[in-house]
Amino acid sequence: MNKIIVIGAVAGGATVASQIRRLDKESEIVIYEKDRDMSFANCGLPYYLGGIVNNRDLMLSATPEQFNNKKDITVKTYHEAIALNAQDKTISVKNHQTGDIFTDHYDQLILSPGCRARTLPFESNRLFTLRNLEDTDRIESFIEEQHVQKALIIGTGYVSLEILENFYYRGIKTTLIHRSEQINKSMDNDLNQVIFEEIKKRDIPFRLNEEITNINDKTVTFKSGHIEDFDIIIAGVGIEPNSDWLKTSSLKLNDKGYIPVNEYFETNVNDVYAIGDIIETFYRHTKKRTSITLAWGAHRAASLIAENLSLDNPHDKVSFKGLLGTNIVRVFDYALGSVGISESELSDYNYTMIEQTQKQHAGYYPVAEPITLRVYFENETRKILRACAIGKDGADKRIDIISTAIIGELTVDDLRDVEIAYAPPFSSPKDIVNMIGYKAQSK
Amino acid sequence: MNKIIVIGAVAGGATVASQIRRLDKESEIVIYEKDRDMSFANCGLPYYLGGIVNNRDLMLSATPEQFNNKKDITVKTYHEAIALNAQDKTISVKNHQTGDIFTDHYDQLILSPGCRARTLPFESNRLFTLRNLEDTDRIESFIEEQHVQKALIIGTGYVSLEILENFYYRGIKTTLIHRSEQINKSMDNDLNQVIFEEIKKRDIPFRLNEEITNINDKTVTFKSGHIEDFDIIIAGVGIEPNSDWLKTSSLKLNDKGYIPVNEYFETNVNDVYAIGDIIETFYRHTKKRTSITLAWGAHRAASLIAENLSLDNPHDKVSFKGLLGTNIVRVFDYALGSVGISESELSDYNYTMIEQTQKQHAGYYPVAEPITLRVYFENETRKILRACAIGKDGADKRIDIISTAIIGELTVDDLRDVEIAYAPPFSSPKDIVNMIGYKAQSK
Repeated sequence: MNKIIVIGAVAGGATVASQIRRLDKESEIVIYEKDRDMSFANCGLPYYLGGIVNNRDLMLSATPEQFNNKKDITVKTYHEAIALNAQDKTISVKNHQTGDIFTDHYDQLILSPGCRARTLPFESNRLFTLRNLEDTDRIESFIEEQHVQKALIIGTGYVSLEILENFYYRGIKTTLIHRSEQINKSMDNDLNQVIFEEIKKRDIPFRLNEEITNINDKTVTFKSGHIEDFDIIIAGVGIEPNSDWLKTSSLKLNDKGYIPVNEYFETNVNDVYAIGDIIETFYRHTKKRTSITLAWGAHRAASLIAENLSLDNPHDKVSFKGLLGTNIVRVFDYALGSVGISESELSDYNYTMIEQTQKQHAGYYPVAEPITLRVYFENETRKILRACAIGKDGADKRIDIISTAIIGELTVDDLRDVEIAYAPPFSSPKDIVNMIGYKAQSK
Repeated sequence: MNKIIVIGAVAGGATVASQIRRLDKESEIVIYEKDRDMSFANCGLPYYLGGIVNNRDLMLSATPEQFNNKKDITVKTYHEAIALNAQDKTISVKNHQTGDIFTDHYDQLILSPGCRARTLPFESNRLFTLRNLEDTDRIESFIEEQHVQKALIIGTGYVSLEILENFYYRGIKTTLIHRSEQINKSMDNDLNQVIFEEIKKRDIPFRLNEEITNINDKTVTFKSGHIEDFDIIIAGVGIEPNSDWLKTSSLKLNDKGYIPVNEYFETNVNDVYAIGDIIETFYRHTKKRTSITLAWGAHRAASLIAENLSLDNPHDKVSFKGLLGTNIVRVFDYALGSVGISESELSDYNYTMIEQTQKQHAGYYPVAEPITLRVYFENETRKILRACAIGKDGADKRIDIISTAIIGELTVDDLRDVEIAYAPPFSSPKDIVNMIGYKAQSK
């Protein structure tokens, strides 16, 4: 019988196993997950901590029992893959509950080990990272047991910003620090200014170019000389791929430890696929290589891998066309979204930037709020390279429209022709997206 | 000196004159408008009546004085064009304030006379239609002076539905009737069911297949035999083009009285253009002829005509690529939007319909509300023909995404690849748009 092994049981792994089972009722499917939980709602964890989502059950979308009973998929948690032997088509697995190590044979192997949170080099029972539901449970227990009233958050990625907001709503007095002035890297940094405005408005202390130099129980010493007590410290200082165990194998990793895949999510090793945060893939519009650690790509890959594995004729394989890294984060009253190559990657191109600020809907209709939209296009081809939008309402819609426009290979000029549904509560007869196209005409 | 005459000073006319002046500082530009006001915010009028927009100044975006002073454009209100002599390049104009009729010569003529509201064949000072700001002022005065408490609305187009909502919020007890069961024609009629649910929830009486047979002061007699008193009656029973004055000219009208234009908004007569609700144009994706009386097309046409008139070399002319009729209306808590050919036009194609109902964002995030999205595609080409969406939140975004997808010539299958910005407050890792693409796979 054909045997498919999946490493990792979160977004990529659990989804690809489910999608395969939908099309293939015969193969044996086994998932090994090194941690306690499968299929938890990563992106919801900050909201659970804030009490905005108040039912923990909603954070766990599936259990191994459910996968076994409903889908005939075996999920083994606390089982960590520790070696790949591509020649034998086997992996070595460590059962962390018993300490046993065993070998398992695969016909197809799908790697979805994800990334882990980096942390800071301090020993402290008050220092946490947030990457999975176990982390969340630990933080939640600590907050309850220690009656946490003052928190320090380090870093300004999505998770840090979302925890900040959620701690604020929960009534925990929170300070934010970041080691540089470049916060929330998905956005043009000057547009991140609204984040500071939102934070200041709520009297939340923050300091840029600031780092921790020491933690002694509650007392934190900073590079700036500042010393202050905190009940809890959350480090959101980046992620790194869980690929160390693959370094001794014949599987190719890039210099950052991510796994390069082709347009079928195949690695350099026969019958070994990779999916999710661990992969290096490519931008749809520029074809340049990138790693985008977001949910959309993992779900798209899961469907494509399952579909291609189920084909009778491999010539019918469907290829992935690449991604755009379309992303968004809510920070208090604002949404900040972007799509396309990053701000730092723009320097590879001759480009022009068009910016427009305009209300999200008819100005006379209540709660009209400005959106700022920027579109970067390549001068020679007029191709859209990147866009970002900020606003209290409707920024997500404009980013999704531009994302779809890039997929449809529309130029910046074609944005004049994008027909956006207009009624006073929704947009304008010339929407901000159209205005970008008109403004680009003279450039 | 070159002289440009524009007929009509609302969305199409005022915008095209402004756009021309932006690029052409030399030509004389004159606008003749048969009614009292120019440049009023048509789409905002129901909201002004409801008090949602409480400042009348917001309904008037420009006056003839402003156009004259700021843009050197002459706007003559109460001046109605009554004849076109294409051979002489002249029009006859009647000044309704003096009764004078005069002739004016144009080098280029742009027709934007719009449509007028149909009404019902009853003599009654309580019977109103709503098409412009004058109508709105009349209704507003009548409501105030007569202490209107009970209203009857006839018809279920956008304006009727918006007035219904606004009268409700204003505290006027309103009854809705419609002569058939086919309400709000932009939507698939079965999806209009939510309109009835919203109306029932608020105890608003409505009757389908109902018509007025007599009005005697306040007393209205209906076809059903029902007799009831109302203080005011608003008829929203359709529109017809203001083109009767052109019937004796050499300008071609279609059998419904709309003016066919080509991809440059040129009519069959040299140097005569048409724009706005009066035109017959074509769908972008099917190329079939249609008349779409919505603001987006008027604004796009205004820019294109102005741009093409300003060219030194006519070979550089930019062509209009057609429209999709993307539209939306809010009815109480719901938005109902659609894009593409109408439900009735589907019968010209071999098509398949895919429907998905799904929350607008992560189910665990507060205020998750279902959206229903339908996409119709042509079987042979997989081309998207039409889509409609209803929901309390996020229906507009999905319609705009599909609109952009059609413009980018994406197939229904390509909807799997549309990368939508995901964070729990905004969408799902597999958004409803993606799910339509996945569901279409097996069809």
